[in-house]
Amino acid sequence: MLEEQRAYIAGFLDGDGCIMAQLVKRRGYVYGYQIRTSIVFYQKTRNERILDWLKSKLSAGYIRRRNDDMSEYTIVGMEAVAKILLRLLPHLRLKKELTKAMLKLIEAWPKNGRPSRSIYLKLCRQVDATARYNYSKKRTITTATVERFLANIKSP
Amino acid sequence: MLEEQRAYIAGFLDGDGCIMAQLVKRRGYVYGYQIRTSIVFYQKTRNERILDWLKSKLSAGYIRRRNDDMSEYTIVGMEAVAKILLRLLPHLRLKKELTKAMLKLIEAWPKNGRPSRSIYLKLCRQVDATARYNYSKKRTITTATVERFLANIKSP
Repeated sequence: MLEEQRAYIAGFLDGDGCIMAQLVKRRGYVYGYQIRTSIVFYQKTRNERILDWLKSKLSAGYIRRRNDDMSEYTIVGMEAVAKILLRLLPHLRLKKELTKAMLKLIEAWPKNGRPSRSIYLKLCRQVDATARYNYSKKRTITTATVERFLANIKSP
Repeated sequence: MLEEQRAYIAGFLDGDGCIMAQLVKRRGYVYGYQIRTSIVFYQKTRNERILDWLKSKLSAGYIRRRNDDMSEYTIVGMEAVAKILLRLLPHLRLKKELTKAMLKLIEAWPKNGRPSRSIYLKLCRQVDATARYNYSKKRTITTATVERFLANIKSP
């Protein structure tokens, strides 16, 4: 990918995209919640071709048509998200600090095996920290939610 | 401005910006309406710094705080708009065809003196054509409006 294409994509992401870390309730997860990292681009379905192009450049993720004439291009997963963010970082402006916080969170995730309970909770707090950059009002699951869940189960 | 900065701004404009040609009612204008060309970037006021940066790079226009926590950076005027669009054109993707139509319209505007009535109406139709790229629902003034206005006044 050309450096100018990376710069274009960084501008597009700064203008209209979303970089997120979330806590998602999952059955069967030892700590009850998944730390889900993602990058999302939104566009009217009539302009979906730009999402196809982004996907061809970023070589990851999937495009989904919503039922409100909007399409979403989503890249999920720590490895894929980190790879893309590292490429865009030099060009990002508006989301640069958020991106740095995301990369720090992903780096802190143990590469081999499951994090300890205390490290997991530390990562949850990093998720909370990234959420502040996105000013989401709908966010309901925070570290406190995970702590309440863990207080009710036996230590793994 | 570095080529990568142009690419970034093109991405930002494709993602979240607006390129427009409009017919605006003006007292004292011989044909009753101004052909107003503009580029607008929108952003939450808390992120206004990115608009300051864009303005420093594009060296034109003004930033306005709206009363709904949003800020707008607007560049108005055929000469300023054309200068910027020409610089961004090689990098634009989503708004490339609209940009070409805008540049064609601006080029067709007579550099010296007032266009004839028939050329003016031709330009109005070009404005109508650019509007289709923006899918605006609020647009009420079209070439037909100008034609009705002109039918009621004497030929200049």
